Amino acid sequence: MATGSRVDSSSSLSAMSIPALLLAFFLLVRSPHPISASKSADSLTYLWPLPSQFTSGDDTLSVDPALSLSVAGNGGSSRIVKDGFDRYKAIIFKNTETFSIFNAFRKKRVGYDIAKLKITVHSASEELQLGVDESYSLAVARSVGQSIIGEATIEANTVFGALRGLETFSQLCMFDYGSKTVLIHKAPWNIQDKPRFKYRGLLLDTSRHYFPVDVIKHILESMSYSKLNVLHWHIIDEQAFPLEVPSYPKLWQGAYSKWERYTVEDAYEIVNFAKSRGINVMAEVDVPGHAESWGKGYPGLWPSSSCREPLDVTKNFTFDVISGILSDMRKIFPFELFHLGGDEVNTDCWTKTSHVKLWLQQHNMTAKDAYKYFVLKAQKIAISKDWTPVNWEETFNNFPESLNPKTVVHNWLGPGVCPKAVAKGFKCIYSNQGVWYLDHLDVPWDNVYTAEPLEGIRDPPKQELVIGGEVCMWGETVDTSNVQQTIWPRAAAAAERLWSTKDSTPTRNVNATALPRLQYFRCLLNRRGVQAAPVTNFYARTQPNGPGSCYDQ
Amino acid sequence: MATGSRVDSSSSLSAMSIPALLLAFFLLVRSPHPISASKSADSLTYLWPLPSQFTSGDDTLSVDPALSLSVAGNGGSSRIVKDGFDRYKAIIFKNTETFSIFNAFRKKRVGYDIAKLKITVHSASEELQLGVDESYSLAVARSVGQSIIGEATIEANTVFGALRGLETFSQLCMFDYGSKTVLIHKAPWNIQDKPRFKYRGLLLDTSRHYFPVDVIKHILESMSYSKLNVLHWHIIDEQAFPLEVPSYPKLWQGAYSKWERYTVEDAYEIVNFAKSRGINVMAEVDVPGHAESWGKGYPGLWPSSSCREPLDVTKNFTFDVISGILSDMRKIFPFELFHLGGDEVNTDCWTKTSHVKLWLQQHNMTAKDAYKYFVLKAQKIAISKDWTPVNWEETFNNFPESLNPKTVVHNWLGPGVCPKAVAKGFKCIYSNQGVWYLDHLDVPWDNVYTAEPLEGIRDPPKQELVIGGEVCMWGETVDTSNVQQTIWPRAAAAAERLWSTKDSTPTRNVNATALPRLQYFRCLLNRRGVQAAPVTNFYARTQPNGPGSCYDQ
Repeated sequence: MATGSRVDSSSSLSAMSIPALLLAFFLLVRSPHPISASKSADSLTYLWPLPSQFTSGDDTLSVDPALSLSVAGNGGSSRIVKDGFDRYKAIIFKNTETFSIFNAFRKKRVGYDIAKLKITVHSASEELQLGVDESYSLAVARSVGQSIIGEATIEANTVFGALRGLETFSQLCMFDYGSKTVLIHKAPWNIQDKPRFKYRGLLLDTSRHYFPVDVIKHILESMSYSKLNVLHWHIIDEQAFPLEVPSYPKLWQGAYSKWERYTVEDAYEIVNFAKSRGINVMAEVDVPGHAESWGKGYPGLWPSSSCREPLDVTKNFTFDVISGILSDMRKIFPFELFHLGGDEVNTDCWTKTSHVKLWLQQHNMTAKDAYKYFVLKAQKIAISKDWTPVNWEETFNNFPESLNPKTVVHNWLGPGVCPKAVAKGFKCIYSNQGVWYLDHLDVPWDNVYTAEPLEGIRDPPKQELVIGGEVCMWGETVDTSNVQQTIWPRAAAAAERLWSTKDSTPTRNVNATALPRLQYFRCLLNRRGVQAAPVTNFYARTQPNGPGSCYDQ
Repeated sequence: MATGSRVDSSSSLSAMSIPALLLAFFLLVRSPHPISASKSADSLTYLWPLPSQFTSGDDTLSVDPALSLSVAGNGGSSRIVKDGFDRYKAIIFKNTETFSIFNAFRKKRVGYDIAKLKITVHSASEELQLGVDESYSLAVARSVGQSIIGEATIEANTVFGALRGLETFSQLCMFDYGSKTVLIHKAPWNIQDKPRFKYRGLLLDTSRHYFPVDVIKHILESMSYSKLNVLHWHIIDEQAFPLEVPSYPKLWQGAYSKWERYTVEDAYEIVNFAKSRGINVMAEVDVPGHAESWGKGYPGLWPSSSCREPLDVTKNFTFDVISGILSDMRKIFPFELFHLGGDEVNTDCWTKTSHVKLWLQQHNMTAKDAYKYFVLKAQKIAISKDWTPVNWEETFNNFPESLNPKTVVHNWLGPGVCPKAVAKGFKCIYSNQGVWYLDHLDVPWDNVYTAEPLEGIRDPPKQELVIGGEVCMWGETVDTSNVQQTIWPRAAAAAERLWSTKDSTPTRNVNATALPRLQYFRCLLNRRGVQAAPVTNFYARTQPNGPGSCYDQ
């Protein structure tokens, strides 16, 4: 792979530092091109999520199906860049394979405007952590002067920024059925993009229903299309414990069946697949509630055989098992955040089971004290393994002063929690169930879209503590048959809220400003094999109302 | 690739001719192993559709993730065999990739019982036509004597038989999460299999909703898992004309949008993808009704701008266009059957439009006569292009004596039509809408399963005229978001009816004899990334009722 240093009209961009580029752009770039200014369907800006800054023109460029990659920078030769380019090339040129028997039909084209994509990645580091630099710049213009073939350029500080740029580039490329050529409308493009929030998550629940590894990979792939970057893997719950834990090999006896399991290799593969798409995997081990399935292999974890959760708070064994699970998981999940759950803890089994009741008395604890004791002990275990603990908001709501200051509070019950959490100095993730629980099928796309993670937080340093948000796909009524149609397109509405600037994606008049783009993006997902449902259905994931175009439904 | 001739315990099978093999099997083989004889879950015969003859034992064999292919016979070196082997190998060993960091976890295995798959294909012909030999034999046994590694063998007359054998082999292979090894239970296996019917179809309607090429490929791939072998592509209908027709380039102006189209290259790619899975594509051009969309590009095809279908019977142009479409399609669709529709023709536009009314008078025709005239003229065009015409049953119901004797009558309105059609010497395809229309969501899986294409036909030569059956996925309320969950698992119920012998798949007590296998097959589809819905839901394609195992839902 060549590491180019030629300076011409397109590569001069790559010779500039990112801060210099930013400055140049802020001087050059107007506010985002308003969609209403479009002259025809071709010139509508069909990008999702909308880049933070961009300019476009009126030119139309053709793209060579033999598009070549040239790379530069310390990170340019990364496998992640090369594989990403190959994936997107397959997506972009899906329709342009040629077959000899149709040469008579095919209009031969002699030259293309864009024959090369140059990707510059400044950093050689492939570490993917919270806050990794996902910014990129993308320029597409007709070549001028002595250069014979044109090129598009992506410049980024990290390979993950380059992946975001590739996604945007792929969305600029449209197959034109008339000329049978991939075209880029509204060139020249100059895009300067970066995410508004560093945490843009989707929760997947593999306990209420098991999802095969291929299905999880498909979900990860589709997440990358809307630039989501965290899969919150709610692996275990009261119904099933599908994950292999080598230290406690009976735990996955809590799986629904011997075939509905994840080996450690499966989990590792998921993490690596995710990384190659710039997605972190945050594992969750929800304690002490939502854990009945643990006792199928180790009944000693239940308060009693007739009262099975929360986990038995009295035994060292309980915390040994948690520590064992987290030790094994540490080898699989490199992400700095680890979710410890802590939600919906009904302590009746503790107060009704005699040995637990006695232990509470001996330790002078109420059941609520024991809940706090359990959560804090689990936090210590996670922190000792160099993890930052995330907990559902009940932990914060019940004992805000006791939580480890590193705790990330995960909102879900309703609005107003992140403002309280950040006021006390905690980081926060926004998942208000009224808008961002995807299993709530009666929430229309626009309610998802207009949700605001920073609602009620005015102070910029406090706003910084909201690391982002997450849509939650709880699994009670989703399995492989319908999970993608329940996730999409509504998850994409949240994805734009989390990526794009607030100013460029107003929350008023969204049927005019955002809906056509979202409908287009839903069809783009369909074209890429993702089962995204009609956008404007009254209930999410229901069938189209009748015959019609994807772009209208 | 080696073309082996070594004679040992496993390859001696391939040294025998198919008739000799058949004889040997009929002497050796008892009736299909009854499922109720299984001793444990491991020993249940989880094959779908059930092979026509098989024996099994009590041995368990391990399969090497490095499974190698050896081929023999005139057709052994076909690309279709090699690609099929590679696809199935990826499916079988999905879970057994190894990662170095987990060496500590992984129990190393030193040897495997099965390290090679030998595929013998006798014929070099790759022609895929109606009635192509899809039979195969499959033997899997532990090696004995001087042979160090064991092998499985597939023997078939054609590459398409070999593909069916590969599918069955893949279903015998189960990933065992305990040993992290692919195992074959109930070995030794001796399977002698062939389809009951030569036409086993699925209709896909790309007019009511457009399906992207990748989605159609995904459907084709999933069809091969249940050994369906015809995609009936209902390309065009009144709502949309998505296909490019080079001879009449304005026709696809009838597409919903400029992005919801199929180029001729797309269609050709679909046909070739299908062929590599042993699936024929039968195209349909439904005339004279269901054709309003044709006039968007050529309004002259409408009786008038206010009365738009059936196609204008009076004009030569109408038949020129049909002839042009069929000429272009002939280059794409090699299958000998071509569907000309002919259903639901409401002739009101003919009798109400003055120039058509006049023409009817001049030609001394009733509207019904003109309907017959149109259908027969279209049949002649198709036959002149070396196609065998298929027509929906209304043509037979209205003018059985006039239809070309080659006509294949396609039943849909209800039971009892195939008996009448075959009595008159016509071939017939069974698609009784009461059981095999997949858009009828209230038809439970067992009604699909117990349907009988030969119902009411006792005479064996007449039975031969029923070439098979087809489940129809009409597209009014399905799009990319839900098509697979509407097709599966019910299409699989029909697939077994069409493949397996009637005796081995009784239609009584199906909850005991077939349901557990079908639930297993639904989960197999899920594992392979196909969105098959829960089997026993009251309405097809609805969500699971609550948390639970795939194998119970």
